[in-house]
Amino acid sequence: MTKELVFGHKNPDTDAIAASIALAYLEKQKGADTEAVALGNPNPETKFVLDYFDVKAPRVVNAALPETDTVMLVDHNEPQQSIDDIESLTVNYVVDHHRISGFNTAKPLYYRAAPYGCCSTIITKMFAEEGIDIPKEIAGLMASAIISDTLLLKSPTTTSVDEEALKALAKIAGIEDVNEYGVKMLKAGTNVDAKTDQELIDSDAKSFTLGGKNIRIDQINVVDLADITKRLADIKTAMKAEAEKENYDLFLVLVTNVLTSNSELIVFGEPKDVVEQSFNSKLDENDVMSLPGVVSRKKQVVPPLTAKLEAAE
Amino acid sequence: MTKELVFGHKNPDTDAIAASIALAYLEKQKGADTEAVALGNPNPETKFVLDYFDVKAPRVVNAALPETDTVMLVDHNEPQQSIDDIESLTVNYVVDHHRISGFNTAKPLYYRAAPYGCCSTIITKMFAEEGIDIPKEIAGLMASAIISDTLLLKSPTTTSVDEEALKALAKIAGIEDVNEYGVKMLKAGTNVDAKTDQELIDSDAKSFTLGGKNIRIDQINVVDLADITKRLADIKTAMKAEAEKENYDLFLVLVTNVLTSNSELIVFGEPKDVVEQSFNSKLDENDVMSLPGVVSRKKQVVPPLTAKLEAAE
Repeated sequence: MTKELVFGHKNPDTDAIAASIALAYLEKQKGADTEAVALGNPNPETKFVLDYFDVKAPRVVNAALPETDTVMLVDHNEPQQSIDDIESLTVNYVVDHHRISGFNTAKPLYYRAAPYGCCSTIITKMFAEEGIDIPKEIAGLMASAIISDTLLLKSPTTTSVDEEALKALAKIAGIEDVNEYGVKMLKAGTNVDAKTDQELIDSDAKSFTLGGKNIRIDQINVVDLADITKRLADIKTAMKAEAEKENYDLFLVLVTNVLTSNSELIVFGEPKDVVEQSFNSKLDENDVMSLPGVVSRKKQVVPPLTAKLEAAE
Repeated sequence: MTKELVFGHKNPDTDAIAASIALAYLEKQKGADTEAVALGNPNPETKFVLDYFDVKAPRVVNAALPETDTVMLVDHNEPQQSIDDIESLTVNYVVDHHRISGFNTAKPLYYRAAPYGCCSTIITKMFAEEGIDIPKEIAGLMASAIISDTLLLKSPTTTSVDEEALKALAKIAGIEDVNEYGVKMLKAGTNVDAKTDQELIDSDAKSFTLGGKNIRIDQINVVDLADITKRLADIKTAMKAEAEKENYDLFLVLVTNVLTSNSELIVFGEPKDVVEQSFNSKLDENDVMSLPGVVSRKKQVVPPLTAKLEAAE
């Protein structure tokens, strides 16, 4: 029997780790020789989850060869998000909740995708279909993955299937108060105090050219906005220095409260009036605006900004 | 609610038609506004099946727009096998048992693939998972699709899941003797008597350049080799005329008995000795050789021929 490695995407999040452990276990029960591995170390949130349920972090690998040429992917399918030697491997199983892009195979395979909020939700259904019990600690990881991906069922990506799966998994895992546990877990992943100002404005920042302007947009997840507002002056100083150094016209930092699904937007640079038009809101005296209900840079920040900046060009 | 068209590949076979009707029904039970359509008229085998179970052939369409921009694919995913305006549409469901190639989406979707012998086998599992009963006539179509794709469970692509699905479907459909029904159905699809010699050597022929030679390989499915051997002289005359007209070095006609999974190979042209080497067998006085166990042109004929012709070049 061929050994098969099971893994999620690079820069693994809680779902990537939980789904790989869950699928490896499920397929092992059905007779496959699987091992869950990871394409990177667990982030602080995932570390909290693994510790909480007393599960060892998966072994980190960068390539599957020469150990095996047969793999299963969870929580991704695009080759650039996958293991370095993906083009030399046979993928015989994919479980995912993303679009399909650039994924081609030479042979038929198992592929299971659904537009749910979390990959672990799909695997929860697969366990039920196969009539296989989910071990308590794996249910705990999977419940945590759903909490993480859906921000405690508040993200607009959440479906009723995610809600039902979380309920069922929490029961198996013995999580008595999902909300209380979820807040603890999300807070562990948003430990703002441990980061320098520079780390905060850097760690999840992406660059864009919109309407001819150099735009930098960072996102910081928090469970308490006060963690940021208490250091606002220092963060703005760091933003200014970075913008001048890197020649950004606009530097935006989206501070997202993962518990309330609301954000504050910190703005450095120009044109500020176009930013205000984009979100139909006003900056306060600290160049901050409230964006209630905004949690997604990709879906809720870049598109309106693109439209207004291109119109203003 | 958006209307969604459900269809299989171009040049539909029994599985493409059966799977589209089955998935459209299943998704309708779950609340979708689906209609099974087809990218071509049913072939003689499928006509027999539709008549037998008294099901109307799906409406034939070439494009989904302007009727709808949302579709579900069965039994294929490659765009060139799909509806003409596929690049302008949103695919929100795929059920398939082929490799994935050239299939990309902008958004997450439902995708269900498994390496079984038949797409209708996957849909049989989906009905069971959802706890939805399969209507008698749809079970009949799906059972026929499995018989067709697996040549009555004898093709090397057959899995134990196909066997179980066929058994369950035949029971629902009231097919008392699967073998007897299957032979009748396969025979209906291989009505050699109704075709001219020219049609026989043309209808499933493909051209190849192998080792610098122009090679034409046709495949004819039969349930009784005598249907061909009784007209062998005429078929060879037609092969000769066609080879001379089209400048083929070699013209091969693979006559496959779909019931026994054995073939006879009729050979016109040169180098005959290389053909003999390719299959490690001898041509008889009529330039015919037996190829026991050979049913696949793609997997069992082209590769050995390629190897020997390139070595002889």
